[in-house]
Amino acid sequence: MISVEEAKSIVLNSTQDFGVEEIPFIKSVGRVLKETIVADRDFPPFNRVSMDGIAIDFNEFSSRLSSNRQLDFKIEGIQAAGSKQITLQNPENCIEVMTGAVLPNNANTVIRYEDVTIENGIATINIDLINDKQNVHKKGKDGKIGDVLIEGNTQISAAEIGVLATVGKSIVKVAKQPKVMIVSTGDELVGVNEIPLEHQIRRSNVFTLVSLLEKLNIPSETTHITDDKPILKAKIEGYLQEYDVLLFSGAVSKGKYDFLPEVFDELGVEKLFHKVAQRPGKPFFMDA
Amino acid sequence: MISVEEAKSIVLNSTQDFGVEEIPFIKSVGRVLKETIVADRDFPPFNRVSMDGIAIDFNEFSSRLSSNRQLDFKIEGIQAAGSKQITLQNPENCIEVMTGAVLPNNANTVIRYEDVTIENGIATINIDLINDKQNVHKKGKDGKIGDVLIEGNTQISAAEIGVLATVGKSIVKVAKQPKVMIVSTGDELVGVNEIPLEHQIRRSNVFTLVSLLEKLNIPSETTHITDDKPILKAKIEGYLQEYDVLLFSGAVSKGKYDFLPEVFDELGVEKLFHKVAQRPGKPFFMDA
Repeated sequence: MISVEEAKSIVLNSTQDFGVEEIPFIKSVGRVLKETIVADRDFPPFNRVSMDGIAIDFNEFSSRLSSNRQLDFKIEGIQAAGSKQITLQNPENCIEVMTGAVLPNNANTVIRYEDVTIENGIATINIDLINDKQNVHKKGKDGKIGDVLIEGNTQISAAEIGVLATVGKSIVKVAKQPKVMIVSTGDELVGVNEIPLEHQIRRSNVFTLVSLLEKLNIPSETTHITDDKPILKAKIEGYLQEYDVLLFSGAVSKGKYDFLPEVFDELGVEKLFHKVAQRPGKPFFMDA
Repeated sequence: MISVEEAKSIVLNSTQDFGVEEIPFIKSVGRVLKETIVADRDFPPFNRVSMDGIAIDFNEFSSRLSSNRQLDFKIEGIQAAGSKQITLQNPENCIEVMTGAVLPNNANTVIRYEDVTIENGIATINIDLINDKQNVHKKGKDGKIGDVLIEGNTQISAAEIGVLATVGKSIVKVAKQPKVMIVSTGDELVGVNEIPLEHQIRRSNVFTLVSLLEKLNIPSETTHITDDKPILKAKIEGYLQEYDVLLFSGAVSKGKYDFLPEVFDELGVEKLFHKVAQRPGKPFFMDA
């Protein structure tokens, strides 16, 4: 009999690689990424306006401030988010800019609407304290083209989904999940829909296992096999071909109808352990 | 502007009940149970054998032990799991019993195979220290018929799935999930499959939101609406009819094309808050 710790380490040292598959990125939450995700461009990809307001040339602002001139700027145009970059033609003027827009050419600083009064096409700045390049999210500040954004083998969460979308990874390489069959044994078991007789109980452990695997995004099937050695052997022989992982609930202890250890042996299944020093669950059996 | 705490409390005080639906129990992980689950019988439903071995009458054992007589018991039969309860005819004999079986009539104590030698139909007990009623899981020990096993409003996890199966709840009442539409706005956004122009970026926030909702087992759809007030108004009017919850990403700040607050107002949507003292995300807008 081995300890729980030993059993755990045997399990962890017996992991298998089930290969890689490509799936739509939006279905990939909880899966393990099997490629490296790199930035396809700088982020932000342009000097990005981060406040709604007006864009100006900071030098013009500071020279007027120091010589006590009026802080009014004629509005030359509007730079909307999603529009091609326009150019501030005259540095004495300004351009209205929207959050998410490209900073216009020849402008470098954004003053938010809250600090401006607009009348008759003229924007007057109502504050003195303005920083050069304020409210501009500089091109490449969050990442450079080619930067690794997500390492391979990362488990994908909602945050990674946003990154995958940003870099255009609509299809993503992830580790394939094993094909799992969960087998219950025990002639005392009846279906969930059935009314058990006095000496019977309903199947339940297999469904708990399904739910636990579902939490790991591993789909599984369930079946029940009667406590009959030839039937068990024939069915398991087929499942060994068809599935990557077989999980059994029951029939590995010392009972007269606990045929599984014999059946595994006859089918050439390599035993990694049988019996773990834990209560309950001592007869835990693991094969390769 | 309100604090994050105030905003949170407004959100939590604005929860809605979307009704109840019946779904297969195996699909109910993560959902909120909307009925009380009670035991349909005692658990265990019978005096259940919890070790493979032999069942005897403890009085017979102790009287032999005190008078130094042989501890050999003729095997009368086998009580398998899933078989009808049989009866120990002669208290001087024993019955082989399997884990999960009903304890035979007139027997009350189980000795595991490890502590017994069986030869020619006779089981000899090799130990002296045996407790009355050992290795028997007494009927009703874990629960009595009618006991509440899961309270209503419990969030269902793998453990509850096992309980639902045990009591035969193949169909279960759960809280209905809201029908959710997530709307992105912002003319700078292009699809994940597209190659953005210099001044464009890909949609990503909506997909992060989809993934976060998925974690709560809430399915959602996404769409994008162009920054055009009549189009926004027409589409949102339709969505307000069709969906329980609309989530918007963008267009609630002070920009020239941030039409949503106006559109909500014109459509008679009640504003619960707009602007939260947080960075980033100050323009957070919530409606009833």
